[in-house]
Amino acid sequence: MTLPRTVIRNGLVVTAAEEVHADVLIEGERIVALAATGSSAAQAWTAETEYDATGRYVVPGGVDAHTHMEMPFGGTYAADTFETGTRAAAWGGTTTIVDFAIQSVGGSLRDGLDAWHAKAEGNCAIDYGLHMIMSDVTESSLKEMDLLIEEGVTSFKLFMAYPGVFYSDDGRILRAMQRAGSNGGLIMMHAENGIAIDVLVEQALAAGRTDPRYHGEVRRELLEAEATHRAIQLARVAGGTPLYIVHVSAEQAVAEIAGARDLGLNVFGETCPQYLYLSTDNLAEPDFEGAKYVCSTPLRPREHQAALWRGLRTNDLSVVSTDHCPFCFSGQKELGRGDFSKIPNGMPGVENRMDLLHQAVLDGHISRRRWIELACATPARMFGLYPRKGTIAPGADADVVIFDPHERYTMSAATHHMNVDYSAYEGKQITGRARTVLSRGSAVVHEGEYLGRAGHGAFLPRGTSQYLI
Amino acid sequence: MTLPRTVIRNGLVVTAAEEVHADVLIEGERIVALAATGSSAAQAWTAETEYDATGRYVVPGGVDAHTHMEMPFGGTYAADTFETGTRAAAWGGTTTIVDFAIQSVGGSLRDGLDAWHAKAEGNCAIDYGLHMIMSDVTESSLKEMDLLIEEGVTSFKLFMAYPGVFYSDDGRILRAMQRAGSNGGLIMMHAENGIAIDVLVEQALAAGRTDPRYHGEVRRELLEAEATHRAIQLARVAGGTPLYIVHVSAEQAVAEIAGARDLGLNVFGETCPQYLYLSTDNLAEPDFEGAKYVCSTPLRPREHQAALWRGLRTNDLSVVSTDHCPFCFSGQKELGRGDFSKIPNGMPGVENRMDLLHQAVLDGHISRRRWIELACATPARMFGLYPRKGTIAPGADADVVIFDPHERYTMSAATHHMNVDYSAYEGKQITGRARTVLSRGSAVVHEGEYLGRAGHGAFLPRGTSQYLI
Amino acid sequence: MTLPRTVIRNGLVVTAAEEVHADVLIEGERIVALAATGSSAAQAWTAETEYDATGRYVVPGGVDAHTHMEMPFGGTYAADTFETGTRAAAWGGTTTIVDFAIQSVGGSLRDGLDAWHAKAEGNCAIDYGLHMIMSDVTESSLKEMDLLIEEGVTSFKLFMAYPGVFYSDDGRILRAMQRAGSNGGLIMMHAENGIAIDVLVEQALAAGRTDPRYHGEVRRELLEAEATHRAIQLARVAGGTPLYIVHVSAEQAVAEIAGARDLGLNVFGETCPQYLYLSTDNLAEPDFEGAKYVCSTPLRPREHQAALWRGLRTNDLSVVSTDHCPFCFSGQKELGRGDFSKIPNGMPGVENRMDLLHQAVLDGHISRRRWIELACATPARMFGLYPRKGTIAPGADADVVIFDPHERYTMSAATHHMNVDYSAYEGKQITGRARTVLSRGSAVVHEGEYLGRAGHGAFLPRGTSQYLI
Amino acid sequence: MTLPRTVIRNGLVVTAAEEVHADVLIEGERIVALAATGSSAAQAWTAETEYDATGRYVVPGGVDAHTHMEMPFGGTYAADTFETGTRAAAWGGTTTIVDFAIQSVGGSLRDGLDAWHAKAEGNCAIDYGLHMIMSDVTESSLKEMDLLIEEGVTSFKLFMAYPGVFYSDDGRILRAMQRAGSNGGLIMMHAENGIAIDVLVEQALAAGRTDPRYHGEVRRELLEAEATHRAIQLARVAGGTPLYIVHVSAEQAVAEIAGARDLGLNVFGETCPQYLYLSTDNLAEPDFEGAKYVCSTPLRPREHQAALWRGLRTNDLSVVSTDHCPFCFSGQKELGRGDFSKIPNGMPGVENRMDLLHQAVLDGHISRRRWIELACATPARMFGLYPRKGTIAPGADADVVIFDPHERYTMSAATHHMNVDYSAYEGKQITGRARTVLSRGSAVVHEGEYLGRAGHGAFLPRGTSQYLI
Repeated sequence: MTLPRTVIRNGLVVTAAEEVHADVLIEGERIVALAATGSSAAQAWTAETEYDATGRYVVPGGVDAHTHMEMPFGGTYAADTFETGTRAAAWGGTTTIVDFAIQSVGGSLRDGLDAWHAKAEGNCAIDYGLHMIMSDVTESSLKEMDLLIEEGVTSFKLFMAYPGVFYSDDGRILRAMQRAGSNGGLIMMHAENGIAIDVLVEQALAAGRTDPRYHGEVRRELLEAEATHRAIQLARVAGGTPLYIVHVSAEQAVAEIAGARDLGLNVFGETCPQYLYLSTDNLAEPDFEGAKYVCSTPLRPREHQAALWRGLRTNDLSVVSTDHCPFCFSGQKELGRGDFSKIPNGMPGVENRMDLLHQAVLDGHISRRRWIELACATPARMFGLYPRKGTIAPGADADVVIFDPHERYTMSAATHHMNVDYSAYEGKQITGRARTVLSRGSAVVHEGEYLGRAGHGAFLPRGTSQYLI
Repeated sequence: MTLPRTVIRNGLVVTAAEEVHADVLIEGERIVALAATGSSAAQAWTAETEYDATGRYVVPGGVDAHTHMEMPFGGTYAADTFETGTRAAAWGGTTTIVDFAIQSVGGSLRDGLDAWHAKAEGNCAIDYGLHMIMSDVTESSLKEMDLLIEEGVTSFKLFMAYPGVFYSDDGRILRAMQRAGSNGGLIMMHAENGIAIDVLVEQALAAGRTDPRYHGEVRRELLEAEATHRAIQLARVAGGTPLYIVHVSAEQAVAEIAGARDLGLNVFGETCPQYLYLSTDNLAEPDFEGAKYVCSTPLRPREHQAALWRGLRTNDLSVVSTDHCPFCFSGQKELGRGDFSKIPNGMPGVENRMDLLHQAVLDGHISRRRWIELACATPARMFGLYPRKGTIAPGADADVVIFDPHERYTMSAATHHMNVDYSAYEGKQITGRARTVLSRGSAVVHEGEYLGRAGHGAFLPRGTSQYLI
Repeated sequence: MTLPRTVIRNGLVVTAAEEVHADVLIEGERIVALAATGSSAAQAWTAETEYDATGRYVVPGGVDAHTHMEMPFGGTYAADTFETGTRAAAWGGTTTIVDFAIQSVGGSLRDGLDAWHAKAEGNCAIDYGLHMIMSDVTESSLKEMDLLIEEGVTSFKLFMAYPGVFYSDDGRILRAMQRAGSNGGLIMMHAENGIAIDVLVEQALAAGRTDPRYHGEVRRELLEAEATHRAIQLARVAGGTPLYIVHVSAEQAVAEIAGARDLGLNVFGETCPQYLYLSTDNLAEPDFEGAKYVCSTPLRPREHQAALWRGLRTNDLSVVSTDHCPFCFSGQKELGRGDFSKIPNGMPGVENRMDLLHQAVLDGHISRRRWIELACATPARMFGLYPRKGTIAPGADADVVIFDPHERYTMSAATHHMNVDYSAYEGKQITGRARTVLSRGSAVVHEGEYLGRAGHGAFLPRGTSQYLI
Repeated sequence: MTLPRTVIRNGLVVTAAEEVHADVLIEGERIVALAATGSSAAQAWTAETEYDATGRYVVPGGVDAHTHMEMPFGGTYAADTFETGTRAAAWGGTTTIVDFAIQSVGGSLRDGLDAWHAKAEGNCAIDYGLHMIMSDVTESSLKEMDLLIEEGVTSFKLFMAYPGVFYSDDGRILRAMQRAGSNGGLIMMHAENGIAIDVLVEQALAAGRTDPRYHGEVRRELLEAEATHRAIQLARVAGGTPLYIVHVSAEQAVAEIAGARDLGLNVFGETCPQYLYLSTDNLAEPDFEGAKYVCSTPLRPREHQAALWRGLRTNDLSVVSTDHCPFCFSGQKELGRGDFSKIPNGMPGVENRMDLLHQAVLDGHISRRRWIELACATPARMFGLYPRKGTIAPGADADVVIFDPHERYTMSAATHHMNVDYSAYEGKQITGRARTVLSRGSAVVHEGEYLGRAGHGAFLPRGTSQYLI
């Protein structure tokens, strides 16, 4: 059997490590070869489909390791389904998401995982993996961790926030870390001291401080840093279990991670575009508009952004994900009018990440290769998807984006493809955009046209993290 | 014109970023394509020369960014010429060296550079670049820096040690850093407080402490760390000029570099195999044997090794070079009997680096990809040789090593190819060895046979460092 | 009315700040004057009682800010009553203790305080104050804090350890800190992550690791440091409430305190003689003898002692108290045979502190003035007893010790006066001992004879801490 | 022989350690007794002279450990002689100065010391000691250090700034530190990297940046911090020699000292009122007025002040001296018009220090006791003058100030007593002022009248520093 062939010619292939002028040969769903553009080897290739990437970048499809499609929160659900959300992701040059299945309190990991498989299966435009949120660490659920790892669900998220919902106390965290230390799982941590925050929430509401901006004020920077420090120490007590801190937003939390990494600990930090580009100024927007920007960890004062960019350069922050968890302003965010604690936590973004990070290249924050490392290669390695995802190399899945670094456009809810009635970046001018997006060799988006289909995307059983030493 | 073709089949191609089962196609002096082993694209290739790398690694040729061939020191000369030294390098899987031309006090950079060109030209088995040692920072030599950069000599080494010989005071260092800040040069620093050390040397000798081990004792760890700190601050005063600290050996110096990097400064650290594998125990070997291990910075107590390995993992140390500067025990090292300060400073190693670092992979210190990053990719980027050197990618020079990760051998002066009468690692058991070494497509070493020739190696005009942000 | 006069002549008066050759004049219960020995002013004094302190020190009576007389723990009670414990304290040169009243879970501060008043009143040989242990932070107990401060109970201890007994979660801690921030109370913290420790205890016992030494192993250093860090951050979130960390034993916890103090935060550290002189070696003594040394925080490996001594010199540790909480080996410590978690936590020491710290002067760890500062002046200031206690100055209570710095003796249960069947320092040679001890002008101990009486000691209503800025 | 008696009644005696309501009895030149005000012991005292200090503080006379009377600099001399300068000091409540004798390059310590003795002897209103500036560290001058210590000159200042004048290179510094390590001398350090600064000075002038404010710009904060770090490391290499950093002005230098002290090193920091109250804003005053504020280390941006105040609270800065070195604006400062490098370095202040620090008490920066500690007690201890100076205790010299904490006045050149034509604090409103100043029992200033005389002040042979551990 001969597989259909695709060749992408004349582009600048940019990966985390290399920038080469090369043609890329795809057979079926996989990349099989790279050859110097213009070489006899490249010229010898024939293909059914040929893309001309002259003046464009050829980059790996984005890997967004932190999304919450259809996530239940505060009595409502995140507005993107796996269908709408993965379609939007594809539009934005992202070809893999890793979403979070949720164990309910008193329930099993199995039940939670099955429920998420059911939501995703047959609905995705691009490939997807699943992390597991552990809401109830018990002898039984600890044992289930091993089974999930065998099925390719190799990362487990715990919460130091949200008491009574997702919260695990330090003893449960320690037990889960110990288990991960022996089964190879990666512990992901929402690091905020939720017990203390809830006191401040109660006090703020009692004092009539009910506007969205108080969401940012009560979730103190020090309480993010404190929880980050605590998680790191617990990981050390557990024997050095690797630890991945999600959505880092506070400068002081970056400092905790940097300190741990200086010691050689396997501690990793993730941040999100909203922390890099938005701030408490947005939370303070009038007429309850600030609610659009309510997420946890919260947006921070503008001064924190420099520390986050620096962390991305120093690798104290290793991954940029979206924490995509959209709630419409109308009917959803509005649940919290008069009580910020009732605003569903989350923001849209799965479509915007690759472009916002390319903009950061243009703005001088990061290099072109670092863009790909943060958005594609490192998340793939971190979550056991490498070498299938995150790079352009012989043998890798043909998840490839042809990216025009010169196209200019304006971000807007009027034009985006996420199922949410606002954009967090409404009106923002962007230079650079995905033009053609291949998922396992198939074009999902091409020159402004959506060619994908629900069900093309397959579940990705993942290996264990490749950053464990 | 058609170029001769070489193909390397069935190996595991390991670069700083990827590990892929791919065949590598070379046309003339350059790599033109990689294709998944067994793919129709790979099978379609025909070539005059074909290597079977089954069970072996296919890795970039090593880049040793710190060698001193024929270097004058203390009235004698380093025992390896460019001919013998580059031949030995090739035997060890290194296909590029960057050696140091020396400005003499009162002389010009031009004269120093010309002298080193004369030594190297026509004599090298592999490609070579040149750094410039600035012994005399003056208005005139500062201007010459710009010219040298145009000629591809883009890095400049200064010494905070060796007063009266190479030493520059802080004012001269500051001026050179300012100039590098504007012309793109990279400042390399020998960071030891030589003024203070010379006091301790004088006091040690006066007190009859003349054995080689006192060389290690007077060159205090704190005086390496102090100078490292000072160099970093001067670079900041100069406006953030990038800074590369050579041969870091003390844990406290690593800490200074780590602190600077946490601040997001462009500060880089290099260490050498001798600091990773040897210690003051060697300096204390009886019968003047310790003299074999006299180099500066000196070997440190064994406890420092853990900090160096950790630095290599955290990237606080980014490069492993050799500081290859061999002096024979007989007749050269012996100049310092009865006075350690007269022992020529330097050790052999250019042939051993790739293997010792592969051993570190086996010993669990670093990953396989990090081995290539430290030994090939990062030095190439750091010194403006990328993408010609340091990786295996379409368009790169065909400097390729077929490495057998299973072969065992014993390091010894009896079998090594360096022109020196002892091995610093005499008797050390090693697993893994370069079997075939290509330099720009030509086999220099193949299965235990030397096929190279003096003059094959060409001078490499280098671009400016690619680590500047 | 004329008060009876006492004069102490010819001694070296040592306070936290001064060392002067002066005679000390006491009228009734208070010091009224100091005059240079031999001066006409001194010679003019006549007195009913005269002590000759030639060759001796005249120092303030010790202030032990951390004792637990008759404390209930694990189904038994600390073996010293207020009568026996304060008598032993006086023998050792301590003239003030501050003990801990305990709120029971579900009970009020008032009830706890009344119970402790009842235990102490009429029974003490020396003056005493009371701290309040808050086991149940509620709206009601928070309000009671204000009342207690008015009654002279101005410090409140919280526990991050002992879940289900004394433990407060971070929310309760935050609330208590906020209240202290407004009412001037000082929060004292037992900083160990008890939730995590309990997991390790359970695991150790399940694995058959039941000996006393496992008490030290499960209560990890990192879990002390973590809790210390967390308490500091919570105090910052509460608005900068001063914080006093009790019984610091781990080097890493000292580092947390040092870091906080470098920031100018009102964070204070206390350590105890057992951490300075004993170690996990003692916990590992065979035949269950290790149980004698079970206390929490636990004894640490010997290497930590250097950090504690250094902290005492740098003032990162400001107070040395005893945490005196004695349980007899027979019948009490033995409750934990076969299960270290059932060993009552606590050690005797109220009698030994002044002498052990003077020994530290002789051993070169601290200066003579620092001895008095750590043992007398700072605890008095910290807990609102200054200027009545902790110094020798006109107007201060005449709590004075005539201390012979040359007398040698051997610590032993056979000769000590604490009501416990072992000494933690059995056989230890000591130089220096209290010879005469005055409490408010009355001799309690004189030259080896006990002259005191139960009921002489009075409750000390304390002001708020004088270390608040 | 009976000595004349003075008694000071009804005041609040404030020392570094105590605040007591006590009467102070003086016999001849010394304090002999303190007694509680109103006690029979106090009431029994009769005296020839009696001061009523009701409503006032009774504090130790100030000890200013850093003055430069008649100092030669840049071709002129500091404008205050020992006569005018010590008189002004007395007006301001300072009763001891320690001035700097200067070794000239090529000269001996002896000659420098003799010259300063000649300047001071018979001219001083208050007692004075001398430090020695070593401008030429040689075998001979090192030996002289021992002799000077025997004569009571126990502290030695070295300069890392001013190449060609006072500058010592790191080797000379190391030798002097080693010597101090064995003879008990205290090394004082002017910590600025003068070699690098001189490059920046030359570049600034060449670029036409000649105004006074460029003095502040070229003497970079990082170059103060760098030198501070280097001095600390050299002291460690010398075996832990104590080190006293003079006139610390940069936040980063405070951080270096704090770090060293956290390690338990004998490193001490001094700052001066000008760094606490003035800033680069003053250096930028128009019409060359900025020249009034030219001193080295230079004034820093206002943001540094918070770090200095914090350092004074945390004891990372232990002493406040003046660095009094006045040059008149007319004729002296004006030497630098058109070339800031020719402005004599130095500012007046010996008269203002005690009041400015009391103002800091009122402003909430420090406590009342800390005021006395910083200004009196610690400098006395640091420089071997304790217990004669710096406290109020039986046996101490009767250097006593009756200070009115309520009096308000305005600082001005029109009313000050220093021999200089401007005030650095012109127009500043101050609350609190010395009303009566006794030097060894004699009134020098009393209620606005000068009663002193040149020659009353005697040379103080000093012991070695009492802060050595």
